[in-house]
Order: sequence, then structure tokens, then C-alpha cells
Amino acid sequence: MRRIQLIIAYDGTDYHGFAKQEHAITIQGTVENAIYSLTGKKVDLVGSGRTDAGVHAKGQCCIIDIDTPIPTERFAKALNSRLPKEIVIKEARDVKSDFHPRFMAKKKTYRYQILTSKVNDPFIGKYCYFYPYSLDIEAMKEAARRIEGTHDFKCFCASGSTVKDTVRTVYSIEVHEQDDIVYLDVCGNGFLYNMVRIIAGTLIDVGRHRLTAQTIEEMLEKRDRTLGGPTAPPEGLTLLEVYYDAALRYEQT
Amino acid sequence: MRRIQLIIAYDGTDYHGFAKQEHAITIQGTVENAIYSLTGKKVDLVGSGRTDAGVHAKGQCCIIDIDTPIPTERFAKALNSRLPKEIVIKEARDVKSDFHPRFMAKKKTYRYQILTSKVNDPFIGKYCYFYPYSLDIEAMKEAARRIEGTHDFKCFCASGSTVKDTVRTVYSIEVHEQDDIVYLDVCGNGFLYNMVRIIAGTLIDVGRHRLTAQTIEEMLEKRDRTLGGPTAPPEGLTLLEVYYDAALRYEQT
Repeated sequence: MRRIQLIIAYDGTDYHGFAKQEHAITIQGTVENAIYSLTGKKVDLVGSGRTDAGVHAKGQCCIIDIDTPIPTERFAKALNSRLPKEIVIKEARDVKSDFHPRFMAKKKTYRYQILTSKVNDPFIGKYCYFYPYSLDIEAMKEAARRIEGTHDFKCFCASGSTVKDTVRTVYSIEVHEQDDIVYLDVCGNGFLYNMVRIIAGTLIDVGRHRLTAQTIEEMLEKRDRTLGGPTAPPEGLTLLEVYYDAALRYEQT
Repeated sequence: MRRIQLIIAYDGTDYHGFAKQEHAITIQGTVENAIYSLTGKKVDLVGSGRTDAGVHAKGQCCIIDIDTPIPTERFAKALNSRLPKEIVIKEARDVKSDFHPRFMAKKKTYRYQILTSKVNDPFIGKYCYFYPYSLDIEAMKEAARRIEGTHDFKCFCASGSTVKDTVRTVYSIEVHEQDDIVYLDVCGNGFLYNMVRIIAGTLIDVGRHRLTAQTIEEMLEKRDRTLGGPTAPPEGLTLLEVYYDAALRYEQT
């Protein structure tokens, strides 16, 4: 039995999220079906975390445990020929049998994209929140700096979440703008449910001068979700990369 | 009755081409339905030309003749709210009643994109021909120069086409490469059926050293389609822009 790590990119537009569901097309279900079609083996694809319906990924990290004669270096190509165009296995490599993509993740980077042009774009628009208004980037940067650090992020967590420990560390939030797209790159040691999308919605409200950097401090202090902006829509969100200790990530069995 | 010019961008992946068909989803049919939903008027959307199933556009130029109280400057936004995300009206403007998007087109630019990375990409890959091999760009440039000019392009026309006059002028073919994508920008006064895709397939074969610049001269001389490369697939092709005399394009009624 080998443990194989798969780095997966996907356009989540038409998928009901990463996690398998009985009556919906999901990333996990689609990849597991492709593995079954290739190897005849039913495996569990374990990811670094779930992504919601409509959310994309450039570097979702997953593992499977499998017993197959197919060499690992041929795995990505063979699987890709059985996958729809929206899902691509970027890399496949052998990892130690105790490597776990969720528990061993050191940090993750998400990107949130906001398209601020007057008119939408059928090519980029699928991967952006189309929001045709000008945003005050400097105000957003200032507010982003208040979110960085180790805080109780309950105020940036969807209501109804049952997670008990809501303390997380956001290492950095980089805000930049190019060609009518505002990029928010958020790197942290872990994220609560909808956390990046609430950060995005709140920073957008700051960019529109509806909220201020001061609001962020109040949100964090009072642990009050209702003070922040709305949850920004899923299509703007992409999981860019999941980071592990190099030793874990690259070591061969 | 006003004649309104619509500049339309579309992701053609899931559409059966531009031209309306009874039992298939097309760009023309979808836009006409959106206009009907907005105005209650059944109109004919006339384009600068057809694009095949799977082909994209950034600047398809169309007209409609319509009698509606909706001001032209609100037309794009109002229509976009009734269109799927893959089709976007970029601009709407009044034009003279004798403006015709096909007959008055002076030139058109198409872009053909080839993704040559080892692994496909779910985001860019939809708009590229995924061809994971290295291409000799200099050889392709050299061959492209032989295609430029006024020639009988019968050898670059899909067999079975009934067009009689197969003489066209290709003003320029620019070949360049960036981040594993090879771009072919082809500008001409008009194009035969599948012409850009046959040019792309032939230049790819040149880039693989299966054909040479010399082959191009032979193709043109013998008017022989069979000497060239295959017709490259539709997903790599995008109609970038259609050019008109400035006076025609911008003049208001």
C-alpha cells in the first residue's frame, strides 16, 4: 500500500464543493471516480480541507492510500486523461504513510479576486467577484494590517459554526490592484468557516468607506460577526497553496 | 427604429457556435432571447461572421434593429443582467442604419493559444489547445511570414467549403511565447472556413519540425489542403476584434 500525494487544481464553478455528497457533483467524488476508472480501486481522497461550492483551487493537497502497479510518476497524466477539464492533477508523488494533508498543514494561502471594471468579463469573471465600483486600496491595506496577527477570529466566522477554538494566526494579507482586478492574498495557519470570504466582504466595505480600519479592531475585540461586511461570494475565492514542512512534503517512502 | 451595435465577448466552451440552431444553445440564440426578455421584441442579431462551436470572442461585432424606449447607453448593463456569465455585452452604441457588421468589416484579428506546459491548467486550459510539447518558435515565425500577404488560401480552407473566391489578404501573423503559452495573432481582411485553425495546425507542425516554411510555399502554390497540418481544435481560438472605418463605427444616428 502506497500513500500518494496529489496536488490538484480545479475550476470549482460548476461543482458542489470539494467534499463528496450523495446527489451532487463534487471535486472529491469526481477524482475518486477517475481513480476507480484508472485502477479499479475504491479509495478515499483526503484533502487539506474542504472548499465550498463555487470555490476554486490551484494547489489543493490530497492523499490516497492505494495498491496499484501504476508507477507514481505516471499517475497524474493517467488520471488527467480520465478527468474533466475543470480538474487537473498537477503533481503526484509518494509520501510517508503518516503524512496527513489536513493535520500537518503549516499554513495556507487563499486569493480573493474582485473585478472592478464597469463591465464584466466572460473569461476572468468566472474567477472574480464582479463588483463594478472603485475601491480605496490604501484604506483596505490599512484595515488588512489590523486583521494580521494571532486573534480570536470568531467575528470572521460564519454564524452556526460549531468550532470551539476560534483563535487563528493570519500571517499576512496582501492587497494589490492590477488591470481592474483587486487581489487579496491571505496567508494563515488555518481558517474558520467562510473566514476568507468574510475578510473579503469586510475589506470591500472598507474600500467603499462603509467601514473603517477601526471597525476591524472593534470586531476583533467584541468578537461580533455582525459588525463586519457581508460574506463575499464564492467565485472570487481560490485556494492557492498549502504548505508543509519540506521534509514531510518531499520525502519518499 | 434604431440600429444598435453590440460588441460581445463570450466564452464559447459550452455553446454550439455563434449561429442560431433550432435544438442547440448558441450565442446568437441566447442573446436574442435576452433582448426579447428585456424589450419584448424579437430581433435578428447579425454578427460580423460566425464562430464555430467552442470558439471564443472578445470583440464580436453585431447589430440589431429595434424600436424600444430603453436608451442605448443603458442597453449593455440591462442585457448583461439577463445573460449567462459566459456572454457579456461590452458596449452598445447607435450606428447609422446602413452599417453592416459583416459586409463593412475591414479586417479581423483572431488569436490562437497553445498551452505547451507538461500539465494542463483548469483556468487557462479552457481557452488553449493543450499541446504538451516544445515548439520551435523561430521556425514558426519563419513559416508565418510565408503565409502573410495576398494569396489564394484554398489550401487553408476546410474541404467541402463552397466559397468560390478563396483569395484573401493576411496582413500579419505574430507568433510569441509567454509562460508556456504560444500565441498566434492572425490579422486579415477576411477568413475562409477553418482558415485560422488550419494555419494554427500547420504552424504547430512546423514548430515540431514535421513541416517546414517551404511546405507553406508548396501549399499555396499547389492550392493543396492535404499538404498542411491538421485543423487545430476550436478551444484555442478567440475572435479578438473586428475593424471598421472609424466614421462608420462611431458615427451616431
